[in-house]
Amino acid sequence: MTHKGLELRSLVKSDGELELSLAEVEVADPGPDEVLVRVEATPINPSDLGLLIGPADLSTLRAAGSKDRPVVTATVPPAGLKALKARLDQSMPVGNEGAGVVIAAGASPEAQALMGKTVAMIGGAMYAQYRIVRAADVLALPDDATPAEGASCFVNPLTALGMTETLRREGHKALVHTAAASNLGQMLVRICKADGIPLVNVVRSAEQERLLRDQGAEHVVDSTAPDFMDRLTDAVAATGATLAFDAIGGGRIGGQILSAMEAAANRTAGAYSRYGSSTHKQLYIYGGLDTRPTELVRNFGFAWGVGGWLLTPFLAKIGPEAAGRLRQRVAAELKTTFQSRYTAEIGLAEALDPKVIAAYSRRATGEKYLINPAKGL
Amino acid sequence: MTHKGLELRSLVKSDGELELSLAEVEVADPGPDEVLVRVEATPINPSDLGLLIGPADLSTLRAAGSKDRPVVTATVPPAGLKALKARLDQSMPVGNEGAGVVIAAGASPEAQALMGKTVAMIGGAMYAQYRIVRAADVLALPDDATPAEGASCFVNPLTALGMTETLRREGHKALVHTAAASNLGQMLVRICKADGIPLVNVVRSAEQERLLRDQGAEHVVDSTAPDFMDRLTDAVAATGATLAFDAIGGGRIGGQILSAMEAAANRTAGAYSRYGSSTHKQLYIYGGLDTRPTELVRNFGFAWGVGGWLLTPFLAKIGPEAAGRLRQRVAAELKTTFQSRYTAEIGLAEALDPKVIAAYSRRATGEKYLINPAKGL
Repeated sequence: MTHKGLELRSLVKSDGELELSLAEVEVADPGPDEVLVRVEATPINPSDLGLLIGPADLSTLRAAGSKDRPVVTATVPPAGLKALKARLDQSMPVGNEGAGVVIAAGASPEAQALMGKTVAMIGGAMYAQYRIVRAADVLALPDDATPAEGASCFVNPLTALGMTETLRREGHKALVHTAAASNLGQMLVRICKADGIPLVNVVRSAEQERLLRDQGAEHVVDSTAPDFMDRLTDAVAATGATLAFDAIGGGRIGGQILSAMEAAANRTAGAYSRYGSSTHKQLYIYGGLDTRPTELVRNFGFAWGVGGWLLTPFLAKIGPEAAGRLRQRVAAELKTTFQSRYTAEIGLAEALDPKVIAAYSRRATGEKYLINPAKGL
Repeated sequence: MTHKGLELRSLVKSDGELELSLAEVEVADPGPDEVLVRVEATPINPSDLGLLIGPADLSTLRAAGSKDRPVVTATVPPAGLKALKARLDQSMPVGNEGAGVVIAAGASPEAQALMGKTVAMIGGAMYAQYRIVRAADVLALPDDATPAEGASCFVNPLTALGMTETLRREGHKALVHTAAASNLGQMLVRICKADGIPLVNVVRSAEQERLLRDQGAEHVVDSTAPDFMDRLTDAVAATGATLAFDAIGGGRIGGQILSAMEAAANRTAGAYSRYGSSTHKQLYIYGGLDTRPTELVRNFGFAWGVGGWLLTPFLAKIGPEAAGRLRQRVAAELKTTFQSRYTAEIGLAEALDPKVIAAYSRRATGEKYLINPAKGL
């Protein structure tokens, strides 16, 4: 028996046209160690937008196709096209993570045990009605959890846990986080509170500052305030933070955090060294909300590092046992620590509506869309 | 018996005035494990200029004092003054490294064995006629070596060896180096040739490219050429370089190297990943010839790191045994691999001449001044 289902596809053609469409695909029966999941909830994370939309110019969005089989196109500027060489003319499925119900299972006991269960998954191609996955790769959710509650089980929760795990492994004692009012940032506030890790939250408005303070965050600094650098330095000095995770990437914010760490270190420094403090300051860039260049005003000596940080290589580095521990914590605290909030639930066809694309592409802090592929089709 | 000697001092006053002068200091007899060295050669490295001149505005240089006891002053702009808080109103001796002749030695056999020998030293305060050092800290030079030949035994040679040592320890197979026509860069060409390490030299003029090619460098790329990025990518692809050491620091050059490494990795990449290649690309900034902000155009995925790199913490990290091996190699290859060239030899008083200061502060590639404190006094 084969299932037919719709799958969202992103195609960038050599001539610079981006085309989003819904492809009808056949889904085979699961193999012995696999399960077939009816996807019911899959979020649009900032990390999905790169593959979905890429560097396309959203002012050129044009709707085509029918109501049930919409097609939408946009123009990718030549400069952006160059970086996409490796994906040109390939119709690519999208969607890093999701959750749904197991409606068929392979013969193995492991697969059979999942029959009828609500499970969370990661691995791409989740913006689809059906998804085959290895039984070993799903996370079975508690019986009272809905797919919507489990849709964002991996990317945000494991990234947030990856930050505190990195802190422990690299020997830091406190953490700075930017875009801290995001869903992920709010999770991090709860994790750090539970684990007793001092956290400096950097936000981009007074409203976001209030939001986090209402959630019990102790150190919240608004980067748009005139005394931002002084307040950041005070918070870094108070917590002893020497590690930062930055979702913004572009502009000066990352470097400003290193500068604040250096200024805090020098408040207690001994003799003058023109090479700066000997305290190692580490910044990881894990997102690119600001796509401009990263600008580092190097007034923080030589004991510093900046690096890219990605979840999948991190999980590979710490190994399956440690990664498994993190996953189990997510399942156990799904409705508390790792709760996500969504701006709206949309269907697959709606996800191709130019107005809706414009909304979820804004990457506005705290706004997140959930696709339910079972909706409206 | 005490010796009296002159010592160059740099003083930044709270009111923003930089004052360079020669202080007459008394040098006590060496302790049992120490030797007294008559300093005869000490280079002005870029790394010395920070302490010597700092952010002073050289257009405000004013000579005062007498011919034998010159004093020179300059204004430090308020923005620069802020970073110097920890050294304000302290008269600081200058000069990281030097060489000279042991003219008195403590009672220990180790110290006595050095009597009359030409030795190289590191540790600051070398712009002086006499320097007391621990016998264990000097490097005894071969009998036929002059102080001038041994003056730059530490900073450049060990930094260059630190680069190839870092390459081995971090598992890279080829190296990119900027400001590659410098004294240090020329050493690195010789080290890499001897050790069979592919090296991509980035220079800033066609003349520098010729200079390095004449010395047998295989991959030399001129950053002022219109096809710079293409040529850099070709050289990185040909060598497989995934590690870079950058003396420039400011501007886009460091990021351009990471971009070239990513482009080279993607020439052989398999499937498209919007997170970039999985090849880790590492850039270390070890100097600041360009004091502008570092600008990273992040088109090189997430598998990358940028960090400050300093010799002293590096030597501490690899431990005394490994550091000792590097030092012995320097002594053994002093007149070949680790030969330095100097633009001029000047006396201590000349080092305070505004015209001479203007010359050695230019940090022009390939120009290096040597102070002989025994000269002209």
